[in-house]
Amino acid sequence: MRGMDEFALIRLLNRRGSPGTGRPNETGVKTGIGDDAAVMKPSAGSDIVVSCDTMVETVHFLPETMQHYDIGYKAMASSLSDMAAMGARPRWALIALTVPSGPSGTWTAESLQELYDGLYACADRYGTVVVGGDTTSSKSLLTVTVTVIGEADEDRSLLRSSALPGDIVFVTGPLGNSAAGLHLLLKAGRPAVPIEDMEETVRSLVLAHRRPEPRIDAGAILASSEAGVCGALNDISDGLASEAWEIAEASGVRIVLDEERIPLSPELTRYASAAGRDPHDFALYGGEDYELVGTVRRERAAELAARFEVAGKRIWLVGEVAAAGAMNKTDKGAAANLERAPMPGVTLRSSAGVEKPLPKKGYNHFA
Amino acid sequence: MRGMDEFALIRLLNRRGSPGTGRPNETGVKTGIGDDAAVMKPSAGSDIVVSCDTMVETVHFLPETMQHYDIGYKAMASSLSDMAAMGARPRWALIALTVPSGPSGTWTAESLQELYDGLYACADRYGTVVVGGDTTSSKSLLTVTVTVIGEADEDRSLLRSSALPGDIVFVTGPLGNSAAGLHLLLKAGRPAVPIEDMEETVRSLVLAHRRPEPRIDAGAILASSEAGVCGALNDISDGLASEAWEIAEASGVRIVLDEERIPLSPELTRYASAAGRDPHDFALYGGEDYELVGTVRRERAAELAARFEVAGKRIWLVGEVAAAGAMNKTDKGAAANLERAPMPGVTLRSSAGVEKPLPKKGYNHFA
Repeated sequence: MRGMDEFALIRLLNRRGSPGTGRPNETGVKTGIGDDAAVMKPSAGSDIVVSCDTMVETVHFLPETMQHYDIGYKAMASSLSDMAAMGARPRWALIALTVPSGPSGTWTAESLQELYDGLYACADRYGTVVVGGDTTSSKSLLTVTVTVIGEADEDRSLLRSSALPGDIVFVTGPLGNSAAGLHLLLKAGRPAVPIEDMEETVRSLVLAHRRPEPRIDAGAILASSEAGVCGALNDISDGLASEAWEIAEASGVRIVLDEERIPLSPELTRYASAAGRDPHDFALYGGEDYELVGTVRRERAAELAARFEVAGKRIWLVGEVAAAGAMNKTDKGAAANLERAPMPGVTLRSSAGVEKPLPKKGYNHFA
Repeated sequence: MRGMDEFALIRLLNRRGSPGTGRPNETGVKTGIGDDAAVMKPSAGSDIVVSCDTMVETVHFLPETMQHYDIGYKAMASSLSDMAAMGARPRWALIALTVPSGPSGTWTAESLQELYDGLYACADRYGTVVVGGDTTSSKSLLTVTVTVIGEADEDRSLLRSSALPGDIVFVTGPLGNSAAGLHLLLKAGRPAVPIEDMEETVRSLVLAHRRPEPRIDAGAILASSEAGVCGALNDISDGLASEAWEIAEASGVRIVLDEERIPLSPELTRYASAAGRDPHDFALYGGEDYELVGTVRRERAAELAARFEVAGKRIWLVGEVAAAGAMNKTDKGAAANLERAPMPGVTLRSSAGVEKPLPKKGYNHFA
């Protein structure tokens, strides 16, 4: 990026941002982009919920995997997904962008505009107003950090630490599509083309990778359920195994996943078969599906499933929560006197009822 | 940075972050670091004020200018300064860090810990709780984005756009020290040494560059003044000329600065003289002083100055606000029929009463 000063760049990129009206309107924005900070009116009686997420060129995307628009869309989506994972309503966002400068910079004003189009399209779709940010130019890789501020009813945020033995584990959608989409894009090994130009058979997998949809809708149903119905909640950014581990550790429980109940799309099954891969690997260790995984009190699971159905959606019941098991005796780091201490963990149960421990490994982007 | 996974790194770096208590305490934090997002209770009746600021290796700091601790301290300080510039009380912060990886990475766990020590030291000093963030490792330059969330009394945030003709312009402290500190560090051209090891005569200039103090105290006095006493407000991150231009443009006025009234420290004057430079250049076009520049209604200026004195602080009255002037006839972009349209701007008035226009140029870090 050359020949444009920072202020001109900010003006260009944020020309659709909220300028602020001086009066709070339904967006809650009193002062938007253009002052030292943005000023907003939070809803009375709500908690505020805040998170940020960074995407970096070469770590989270490559020219082979994403178009400029997709990078923006996905950066916003992954931050909004953290709101879904808390059962929160996203309201406002800030975009911190570091743009490669100098002769090697391949980012033009046009490509940055496409990236911002993606950021704004996703924000708009989920009722989120961009209220600020910071733009820096450096001899670095493109880095975009999106901070999202949302709201939740007082003390009703859904945490990782609330799973109880006896709970049923659920997910909100088929898993592994995004990782399969990434797999096929990397295998193709050519610059990313528009999704519209891709073969019908792989389009949904690529779409899952490039334009994930944060499950704000599912989070809202869960948060609006009677208090205590939903236990723990997480979004699936690093694969089901890793996210289940986070819940297990935060809640001090063991999570048992039933392999055959994990929802897989027909497209994933077809693709994995053609590629000679186990589709469950994509679902368990692939990342960036941005569906939700959570737990529900056993006696309320049917009721929760019905609530989703009434809303024209569904959940999949994929396992259960048990008390933390005994520590594995072969654990090298375990002192002898800790051998029988309770230990959280995650296991995968086959249709024959055989359980095997799932490694904690998460998503390793381009490994 | 090699050989450490992201979660281990986050745990290490944030070991002093707020884990959250499940109950709101005086920090307002219900859920801190460790879930998908942080949950906080905003104060009843307050607006929330949000801003983010990015610092990148080579753009904002070099091995010659800053130690690791300083980078962290200053990254937090510059973000908190945006709260001061709104008259807001900073409350919570998120830290997004991208760490260079691979064989060329010179960042060790120890140097990152120093950087975080600086971030937390500054946050602690200003009553700000770190509630979250994101840590990424990439073959990139060190990039740190700090998002700060503060609070202000309803509709009492101090904006850039509120200057009125007739207002008096004030600043909250001597200017140019930070730029002079940078100048001498770059001239020395050797790896940064601890401030304690520097010569007494230059220590205050280097300190101003490495550990600026956001003027939260001054912002609080201004925000607590009777409504309408303080007009516009900005923090001085890019030099007085650039910040005055921002107020002039946002408010549609002309700002006249009196050269001899701009406060300069004895250290700056001495250093500039020895270096053969005009000390005003450091004050007007140097950056990162993080003092505040604002306007006050003319008839209330003495009262405001007295309020600062009662608090053991002071302001300097450095100029006045006039109606926007006529557009410069030599402006190449101006259509003939716009020639007499009002145009905002900034001028510098000498002790002899001669006014010259000040260029809008801001801080150009290492140019």
